[in-house]
Amino acid sequence: MACLEQIEPALERFVNGLALPIALVDAIRYAVLGRGKRLRPVLAWHACAAVHPEPARSLRAGVAVELVHAFSLVHDDLPAMDDDDLRRGMPTLHVHAGEAMAILAGDAMLALAFQHLADPTEEPRLAAALVGELAHATGGMIAGQVYDTLGGLPEGLSDLDRVRLVHRNKTGALIRAAVRMGAMAGDASAGDLAALTRFGDAAGLMFQVVDDLLDVESTVEQTGKRTRKDAPLGKLTYPGVLGIDGARREVEDLERLALQALRPLGPASHGLAALVAILARRRS
Amino acid sequence: MACLEQIEPALERFVNGLALPIALVDAIRYAVLGRGKRLRPVLAWHACAAVHPEPARSLRAGVAVELVHAFSLVHDDLPAMDDDDLRRGMPTLHVHAGEAMAILAGDAMLALAFQHLADPTEEPRLAAALVGELAHATGGMIAGQVYDTLGGLPEGLSDLDRVRLVHRNKTGALIRAAVRMGAMAGDASAGDLAALTRFGDAAGLMFQVVDDLLDVESTVEQTGKRTRKDAPLGKLTYPGVLGIDGARREVEDLERLALQALRPLGPASHGLAALVAILARRRS
Repeated sequence: MACLEQIEPALERFVNGLALPIALVDAIRYAVLGRGKRLRPVLAWHACAAVHPEPARSLRAGVAVELVHAFSLVHDDLPAMDDDDLRRGMPTLHVHAGEAMAILAGDAMLALAFQHLADPTEEPRLAAALVGELAHATGGMIAGQVYDTLGGLPEGLSDLDRVRLVHRNKTGALIRAAVRMGAMAGDASAGDLAALTRFGDAAGLMFQVVDDLLDVESTVEQTGKRTRKDAPLGKLTYPGVLGIDGARREVEDLERLALQALRPLGPASHGLAALVAILARRRS
Repeated sequence: MACLEQIEPALERFVNGLALPIALVDAIRYAVLGRGKRLRPVLAWHACAAVHPEPARSLRAGVAVELVHAFSLVHDDLPAMDDDDLRRGMPTLHVHAGEAMAILAGDAMLALAFQHLADPTEEPRLAAALVGELAHATGGMIAGQVYDTLGGLPEGLSDLDRVRLVHRNKTGALIRAAVRMGAMAGDASAGDLAALTRFGDAAGLMFQVVDDLLDVESTVEQTGKRTRKDAPLGKLTYPGVLGIDGARREVEDLERLALQALRPLGPASHGLAALVAILARRRS
C-alpha cells in the first residue's frame, strides 16, 4: 500500500529521535520496527483520506496508535500474561531482552504515544482530543484483556454477548480509535465521524473474529505466532460459540455493516472499503 | 495539611468514577487509595498556590501525577523488577491480586492519567501542555529505572555523576513535573515557571538522597517497605558514593538551593518552603 511508504519512515523517525538510554531505545525499536502489518496507522490514514485531501495529517495519530498496539503485544506476551515466545516470527521482547526490559519498554511506549500526540507543534484542541481518544481506547483494551485472561465478565450474558464484549474491548477498541483518530486529524464533520465510528466498530470486531478463525485453521508458519492456543485455555471465541461456519457468516455480516457505514462518505472512502475486504479474507 | 482534604477526595472520586471491570477497579483502588503521602499532588497544589489564588486548579494535575507515581510503584515491585512484597506496610499489588492483574492495573493507571488530563471539560492548551509534561517525565522515570536496574549508563562519568543522573531521572523527573504541572495549572508566567522548575529539580533530587539515607538508617517498621536493599544489590546511592555525612551535607545543600529558587515568588511560596523543610527531615 502506498501509504506504508510514509508510515514506516514516520515510525523510524520517531524511534531514531528518542532521547532515552540506548538499551531502552533498542528494545522499543525491536518491538515497533518489526514486521507489523501497520493495520492501525493504515486505517487512520484511510479514515483521514475519507474526509480530507491530505491523509498525511494522520501520521502523528498513526504512530501513536501503533505504539500503543506494540506496547500491548509486549505486555500480553509476558510470562505472567499469555507467556508467548514468538511474535511476528521472531522471539518476543522478553525472550530477546529480558522480562524487566520488556515491562519497562512497554511502559515507555505507552507514555511516548501520549507525548507524541501532545507535541507542542500540534494544534492543542486536536492534541487533547487525540490523547483522550487514545487513552480511552487503551483503557478499553486493558478491560478486554482483564475479561479475557482473568474473567469477571458481568453476570447474565449469553456466550455470544460475552465473547462480543471481550472482542469489542480487547481488539475493537484500538481499531475503532485508529479510525476515529484519523478522521479527527482530517477535521471530520460530526456526521462523517459518526459514520466512520460505525465503520470502525464493525471492522474492529470483524478483525478479531477473523483472528479466532485463523487460530483454529492456520499453522504457526502462516501467522508467525503460536496458533491453536485459544481452545486449550478455554477462551471464549466466535468459532467456539457459533461454530466455524457461524463465525464465517459473522465475518460476512460485519464486512457488510462496515461497507454500509461508508456509503455516506462516497468515493473518498474507497481505501477503507478495500481494506475491510482484505481484512475479511486475510490468511495471516 | 489542609490541601489533603481536597486531594484525597479527588483521588476517591476519580477511582469511584471508573467505568472498567470491577476487579480492575479494585486493583487500581488498592494501589492508589492506600496510605500514600500524596507528595506529588501536594507539591502541585503548593506550586499552584505560589502563582495563583486558587490552588484547587491543580487537582486534575495532582490526580494524574499520583496515578503515574502509583503505576510506577506497582510495576517496580513486580517479581521481574525489584520483587518487593511490601509497600506502605501492605502486601504489594502482585501479591494481593496476582502478577497479571498488577501488570494490567499498572498499564491502566498510566493510560488513565493521560485520559484524566485530556478530559473534554479542560482547556485544550493546558490539557495538551500537561500531557506533554507528564509523558516526558514518565519517560525520564523509566529511563532512570533502566539505568538503576539494568545498567547502561553513559561511559566516562564519575560515580557521583552516575548516581545523580539515575536519581534525577528515577525520582526527580516526576517530582519536578508535579511542581511544573501545578504551576502550569496556575497559569504561571515564564519567569515563575523557571523559578519553580529550579525548585523542583533541587527538591526532587533531595527527596531521593533522603530516601538513600533512610534505606541505610531505618527499619522496615519505620518506612513500611523493605530497607537496606540497596547495598546488597550494588546499587549506586549517595551514602555509598559520599558517605553518610557527605550525603547529609548534600541534603542540606539541595534544601538551600530549593529555598533560594523560591525567593522571587515571595510569601505565596511559603507552602513549598515548609514542604521542602519537612522532606529534608522526614524519617519515613
